[in-house]
Amino acid sequence: MARTSLGRWIPESFHGRICQPYQDPFSRQPDQQRASRPLRRINPGHNKVIASLTEAIEAAGLQNGMCIATHHHLRNGDALLGMVVRAIHALGLRDIVIASSSIHPVHAELLPYLHDGTIAAFECGVNGLIGELASKGEITCPITVRTHGGRARALMSGEVQVDVAFIAAPCCDCYGNINGFSGPSACGSLGYAKVDADYAQTVIAVTDNLQPYPVAPISIAQTQVDYVVEVERLGDPQKIVSTTTRTTTDPIGLMIAGYAAEVIEASGLLKDGFSFQTGSGGTSLAVAERVRDKMLAGKIKGSFGSGGITGYFVDMLEHELFRSLFDVQCFDLQAVQSIGRHPGHVEIDADMYANPFNRGAVVNQLDVVMLGATEVDVDFNVNVNTESNGYLLHNTGGHSDTAAGAKLSVITVPSIRGRLPIVRDAVTTITTPGETIDVIVTERGIAVNERHDDLRRELEKRHLPVKDIRQLQKEIIALTGQPKPVEFEDDVIAVIEYRDGTIIDCVRRIKA
Amino acid sequence: MARTSLGRWIPESFHGRICQPYQDPFSRQPDQQRASRPLRRINPGHNKVIASLTEAIEAAGLQNGMCIATHHHLRNGDALLGMVVRAIHALGLRDIVIASSSIHPVHAELLPYLHDGTIAAFECGVNGLIGELASKGEITCPITVRTHGGRARALMSGEVQVDVAFIAAPCCDCYGNINGFSGPSACGSLGYAKVDADYAQTVIAVTDNLQPYPVAPISIAQTQVDYVVEVERLGDPQKIVSTTTRTTTDPIGLMIAGYAAEVIEASGLLKDGFSFQTGSGGTSLAVAERVRDKMLAGKIKGSFGSGGITGYFVDMLEHELFRSLFDVQCFDLQAVQSIGRHPGHVEIDADMYANPFNRGAVVNQLDVVMLGATEVDVDFNVNVNTESNGYLLHNTGGHSDTAAGAKLSVITVPSIRGRLPIVRDAVTTITTPGETIDVIVTERGIAVNERHDDLRRELEKRHLPVKDIRQLQKEIIALTGQPKPVEFEDDVIAVIEYRDGTIIDCVRRIKA
Repeated sequence: MARTSLGRWIPESFHGRICQPYQDPFSRQPDQQRASRPLRRINPGHNKVIASLTEAIEAAGLQNGMCIATHHHLRNGDALLGMVVRAIHALGLRDIVIASSSIHPVHAELLPYLHDGTIAAFECGVNGLIGELASKGEITCPITVRTHGGRARALMSGEVQVDVAFIAAPCCDCYGNINGFSGPSACGSLGYAKVDADYAQTVIAVTDNLQPYPVAPISIAQTQVDYVVEVERLGDPQKIVSTTTRTTTDPIGLMIAGYAAEVIEASGLLKDGFSFQTGSGGTSLAVAERVRDKMLAGKIKGSFGSGGITGYFVDMLEHELFRSLFDVQCFDLQAVQSIGRHPGHVEIDADMYANPFNRGAVVNQLDVVMLGATEVDVDFNVNVNTESNGYLLHNTGGHSDTAAGAKLSVITVPSIRGRLPIVRDAVTTITTPGETIDVIVTERGIAVNERHDDLRRELEKRHLPVKDIRQLQKEIIALTGQPKPVEFEDDVIAVIEYRDGTIIDCVRRIKA
Repeated sequence: MARTSLGRWIPESFHGRICQPYQDPFSRQPDQQRASRPLRRINPGHNKVIASLTEAIEAAGLQNGMCIATHHHLRNGDALLGMVVRAIHALGLRDIVIASSSIHPVHAELLPYLHDGTIAAFECGVNGLIGELASKGEITCPITVRTHGGRARALMSGEVQVDVAFIAAPCCDCYGNINGFSGPSACGSLGYAKVDADYAQTVIAVTDNLQPYPVAPISIAQTQVDYVVEVERLGDPQKIVSTTTRTTTDPIGLMIAGYAAEVIEASGLLKDGFSFQTGSGGTSLAVAERVRDKMLAGKIKGSFGSGGITGYFVDMLEHELFRSLFDVQCFDLQAVQSIGRHPGHVEIDADMYANPFNRGAVVNQLDVVMLGATEVDVDFNVNVNTESNGYLLHNTGGHSDTAAGAKLSVITVPSIRGRLPIVRDAVTTITTPGETIDVIVTERGIAVNERHDDLRRELEKRHLPVKDIRQLQKEIIALTGQPKPVEFEDDVIAVIEYRDGTIIDCVRRIKA
């Protein structure tokens, strides 16, 4: 066992890879070269279109034990990963490692192939049932959870080598030019897939919308794509993008949003050039709405909004509250309809979004990011991976990346969920280190990381309910009682990789 | 000495690199991995802006004997390469290799630094005085001429490693996001520079138009750029883009253009999906005009136009005669004004344009390309590098790349220039092998490569002046007389690299 600087015990190695214990957010320097792959030659007249997924897998030379990837822009509507794994299974291949950009609840359909040995491991975080069953010890399948930026880093450094990337391609031509802007499976940005196209040894575009050459604009280019396969349907359009995302109407959520907006204003960052990221949850959107109103009232011209992009941000771009949007993933239909049309709505890849090991990611330029949590603790550490029951249920996304990059990272979270207190002595799992979290906003009070004394004083001056985090915890526990600790076995079912490649925590099997 | 398959004698090695003799256009397979470079880490708060070019060169760690590059999108208006070399000279560095995407006549200003040993070699072709003086033996400086696609290949394969790329950045922010669409040095596409940004060990953006973060759209991203330097002026806007490009009014040019347009029509390629590339010369534009008229008359919807893009192609895009333009370089102001605004006007890099060693370049999808020549020969080999006086005066550009890729490559050339016959027994220098040239059009007749018997018959049916190339040569020489052969010394001043990295010919010093 090895120990991180935050006191967590992690295994010496996991799934064949040495675990470097986490030290701090910023000091680890890369010692690798950018990953390579063989140059190939495609002469005029060559046909890339292959009749079936099975033939494409054979052409790609996929072997037992190799690593595949898909992207998660189709979210819970994705049918491709299931199709690919069934085709791999039918070919009799085994011990395949999945390094997709994320796994969604729909991918519970993979369970039979975990049981029968077709799939050996996940080199990516998982949302939903797969993590729950791993937590219960009902499946055995090592899971390495990565941030969005950390995944880009792992591919670029060669730490993870994807042998075959299957790219769900909503709009694709026969030579492999791709965008996600139109077609029945339109998903907008292909930000996560772009890294796969750049680093996988073989790249297969899979489309339900084969268009005449050339597709334009081009998000992933013909120069990266080896094969093109046509299928009936990439997924369920109803689940690919929700048609609307809405602000919360819950009074607790609204109270939190109001406080969060006040915190942003008090920080002094809400001025010309302001940059901002928020998620698609109801509370996040309510914060975005309040920030927008403050910008309008103050005639503030922001620089950019980033991250998963919603219609709220598109509106702000169109009303010139931001000059640009950096879009790694579209969260709703309005974002899909804007990207590729508005020149300020820029599709970026996961490398540019959040990779710590390049010449500077977008997160480094963020003023404010609004983030969620399943738990926080008195050291400001944040958990988004497990819930208080100990189950691994969520992927990290850009959480640790944006928290590290932004000048002000704000966690908005209700103080109590399911009768359990959200502020803990120690989070069940550390996803994001407290050193990169500035403020925690609950409906019962606002806790400010001690290095932001100025901000704390400013909030007090504005009569906002600032509380020491231990005091806040005490008040919450007075209501909920001290929760019974979850008990764990020794075996590690997942490691939580920090964005720099060190291991910040691990997830153990629940005691039955 | 080694001998190419076309019978040219080339040196065994040149400037420290083994010369592989050219064999044929398509069979050489890459055996390299894509070139790498060290990963770097830039944390939040880091400032990339450096006060002067000199300090940036020092920060980049440039040493004696290292390799630098600039791009040629500013053409004969470029001031950056001169500035860079003067700064290098002032630092006392020596034996620097220049691997820019091209050298223009303006860069004759480098001559003092060739004489004094600051510059040791050109890993790129040259236009103008430098080549002429090398041909005369007045300067000693090995020159390796590459095609646009071949340069991308050489950088991607690591055959040429650029240590420091200086990117003239017409619109740039403090974190290194760049486009060429606006500012006093606006040049449109940055297609050649994009490859440098991707493969140089250190990338320095140099701008005369520093904009607030973030610049959008983004042609070269912050993730690639190490330093940003502000200078007074990148160049002379009058010479960066000519405000108009015009069709020829010369009767010989018009006759050639008319024949060429008939050849395209007779080829059967001028139908829906048609793709087309032509240069910016007056005859090329006259051909484009005729092709446009034929497309309008036939209600033909083309797929794409490519290459250096002119206003003629922009008009055709706007009138929906093409769905897309693939733009590696803007040839005029109208193209600069269109790129970044019209979603079908796609900026591509030199890799996507023409690299033979990727998963398929745009040139592979071309139906027809119109090309020029300084000489052609009875085997359809084409020279664009030297003139009949033996002087190395021109870079190759995309000539060999498009000729190899297109279904139909047409050379338009007057039969006589400066009283010299253009059709030779053997061209002075082979730039592009005859195997990839289909038709040669002169005002005195049209020669068709013998593998296109169908096309020859079709042209005859249409009563076009088809002639055997030896017959055509005979008629021309009857007028000009047999030219006196130029005499050469043994020493090789330049090698002409074919797009696949083999050496197709070399240029020798002229006998005084």
